[in-house]
Amino acid sequence: MSLLIFNGIIVTLDENNNLFYPGYVFIDKNEIKSLNKGNPPSELFKEADKVINAKDKLIMPGLINAHTHAAMSMFRGLADDLPLETWLKDFIFPVERKLVDKDFVYWGTLLAGWEMIKSGTTCLADGYFFEDKAIEACKTLGLRGILAQGVLDYPTPDVPEPKKSLINAERFLKKWKDFSDLITPAIFAHAPYTCSSETLKKAKDITRNYNTFLFIHVAETQWEVEEIKKRYGVTPIYYLYHLGILDEKTILIHANWISDEEISIIADTGAGIVHNPESNLKLATGLSPIPKLLSKDIPVALGTDSAASNNNLNLFQEMDTAAKIHKGILLDPTIMPAKTVIKMTTTIPAKMFNLNTGCLKKGALADIIIIDLKHPSLFPLHNIYSLIVYSIKEAETVIVNGKIVMEKGKITSIDTKYIKEKIFQISEKIKKFLKLS
Amino acid sequence: MSLLIFNGIIVTLDENNNLFYPGYVFIDKNEIKSLNKGNPPSELFKEADKVINAKDKLIMPGLINAHTHAAMSMFRGLADDLPLETWLKDFIFPVERKLVDKDFVYWGTLLAGWEMIKSGTTCLADGYFFEDKAIEACKTLGLRGILAQGVLDYPTPDVPEPKKSLINAERFLKKWKDFSDLITPAIFAHAPYTCSSETLKKAKDITRNYNTFLFIHVAETQWEVEEIKKRYGVTPIYYLYHLGILDEKTILIHANWISDEEISIIADTGAGIVHNPESNLKLATGLSPIPKLLSKDIPVALGTDSAASNNNLNLFQEMDTAAKIHKGILLDPTIMPAKTVIKMTTTIPAKMFNLNTGCLKKGALADIIIIDLKHPSLFPLHNIYSLIVYSIKEAETVIVNGKIVMEKGKITSIDTKYIKEKIFQISEKIKKFLKLS
Repeated sequence: MSLLIFNGIIVTLDENNNLFYPGYVFIDKNEIKSLNKGNPPSELFKEADKVINAKDKLIMPGLINAHTHAAMSMFRGLADDLPLETWLKDFIFPVERKLVDKDFVYWGTLLAGWEMIKSGTTCLADGYFFEDKAIEACKTLGLRGILAQGVLDYPTPDVPEPKKSLINAERFLKKWKDFSDLITPAIFAHAPYTCSSETLKKAKDITRNYNTFLFIHVAETQWEVEEIKKRYGVTPIYYLYHLGILDEKTILIHANWISDEEISIIADTGAGIVHNPESNLKLATGLSPIPKLLSKDIPVALGTDSAASNNNLNLFQEMDTAAKIHKGILLDPTIMPAKTVIKMTTTIPAKMFNLNTGCLKKGALADIIIIDLKHPSLFPLHNIYSLIVYSIKEAETVIVNGKIVMEKGKITSIDTKYIKEKIFQISEKIKKFLKLS
Repeated sequence: MSLLIFNGIIVTLDENNNLFYPGYVFIDKNEIKSLNKGNPPSELFKEADKVINAKDKLIMPGLINAHTHAAMSMFRGLADDLPLETWLKDFIFPVERKLVDKDFVYWGTLLAGWEMIKSGTTCLADGYFFEDKAIEACKTLGLRGILAQGVLDYPTPDVPEPKKSLINAERFLKKWKDFSDLITPAIFAHAPYTCSSETLKKAKDITRNYNTFLFIHVAETQWEVEEIKKRYGVTPIYYLYHLGILDEKTILIHANWISDEEISIIADTGAGIVHNPESNLKLATGLSPIPKLLSKDIPVALGTDSAASNNNLNLFQEMDTAAKIHKGILLDPTIMPAKTVIKMTTTIPAKMFNLNTGCLKKGALADIIIIDLKHPSLFPLHNIYSLIVYSIKEAETVIVNGKIVMEKGKITSIDTKYIKEKIFQISEKIKKFLKLS
């Protein structure tokens, strides 16, 4: 299918930060074939199978959510404002042990994916259990994803015997590695305190063999830093470095408690960082020194983390928070400017995950969002980058790999009423199990 | 007119935090006549002029935005990510001097009011120039407001001779004091560093004579604290205290840089505080120690500040940020729980401004919002207070003083296309003046 979008404000985020107003984008199959300012040549109108007039609309690259646990949307609001330990031990862990199964992950990921599409996300980096079902849900919705099977040295809902955790993860990579252009299977090693050194090294070896990514939560809390020091005599980043598992395909999630020396190590190895400010604030776990990381050219992408700790999966809102919070804490309104923050959901994660997306240019894959600017919070329009980071919250039409997955607010692939029914049934089970009214 | 809303989830925020699910509210003229759980008695269906079936919807008190400069929505995104001084001196002040007139304030306030209604705000506390026009705009939209005429010892767009600033403010109070049940005129003395001691004392005297409110920005930046110490030998709160102008009708905006002793003074005098976390973060001016203030039973309400420094007027988003930021900074996930934060936009500002609103109970004025829970970011529903603070962002139907001002997302009072046209014309003037492309 070919698609022509014209008469809109095109924010390319390409090397020259070209803005075309008005401008057009022509997509054939899954690729951007041409884009430019002004009106499209008349032959494109004839050639296109579908034409979208984007008058008063903004066209930009789809956003990339660099860290989430999609299926955990089922836990949204389940147990907020509690100490981290109470939240995990009395709520999340018991429910996961008892109720997380294939259905839970499939429907939970559909709910999360629906919310992400509504808020302009075209690609997610996800890590959870029964990740095969997360892949199926992304396939259903048409989302791009780096989907990582969870690995822990504890019994998990999908792998009751920890010994089999890595076997399951390798099976997962093998099964999905050639499944689809949109899906990159990966491994998510939960954290340095839940996986042994051996598990971490083996997990990294497996991902190296399959030329894919290893995600790991690291240095999220002060407790973790102390715990790793107790166990191994060094802080978490040093620990991972000495294990030999830091490289450009290791993605460090959070990295809240890190020293300047550790920042240099991260920069040297090329490892990527994912910053999840809303989750970090709400769980009160600490905040990564992002402006410092960016000044060392370390790739830092934004993630929403899960709806259990955020409580939304809206990357526009995450950009808003990321732009504001570091200014506020460092008392400097000039840091984390809008143009920098936009890259953290587009060009930076695209490069991090080896995706030919994240900007609009000839030859890039067509992951594109169209935003309606009618909402009163979106005008007047003095600065397009400020508008994107500080004001926009939703997309109207979302295109992934050249295919429209949402048109004018409506998901094209699946009956959302049916998702809601399924979610309701599972949430009733959770309430019953926890004896909530 | 009488209105029956039934079959919804009623969040009363009354003394017992009653939740009715399902429940109904019956409104006659501008007042809540009855509300309860279950289905309404059949006679109410006959009696009501209009009936709303709120299946799968949430009904709660309308939100109160305790600090904004509505007309400044015209400046949204005009000059972000800049040092405060550059922002004010190179952009905001020159444009204000040249372009802010009656039309600017009227149309800017309509734009702001439209955005606030969309996001569930039924009442605003506003302070700006040409505030007569802000009152007219609120009247047009049907919003409740405490609308305060700006007072400064510098030439302002509406009062070029500073000497006449207080005369103009008193004229304003006299003109509007009996105009409408929905409008409370007040005075907004800009700040301790822009108003002399004499101006502040006189402004307070005038508000005392008219039994109304004095708003003042105070202790917003470290610079201000040092400046006031230089001029008067004491910090800003001490200074205002010694002037004798702190009481229950003085509303302190920001109060970011305050000591424990100053907190005690505020508590003793009964003065209210308005916390604007998103503006404080974005301008990097500092952050008020809100959990400490709340622990001393000081009334703390939330404000969005203006769209020039936020860049939105969404109180739901402000609640989300307020709940997260203090947890994150104090590394304690249990502080600022959802139930506390909700009060900062409802019951607390209602009491602060002497309004019989902020909760749903028999005899209260009918300022009510209805929220559609269909959006994928709003389920499953495990906790209604978490949902309100961390997830909801928009209202579907808004009722102020018993009158529907927005129904199913449509403003009832004015053609929003016409607002947009006017805003566009004014924003073009701003661009031309600043020579922006």
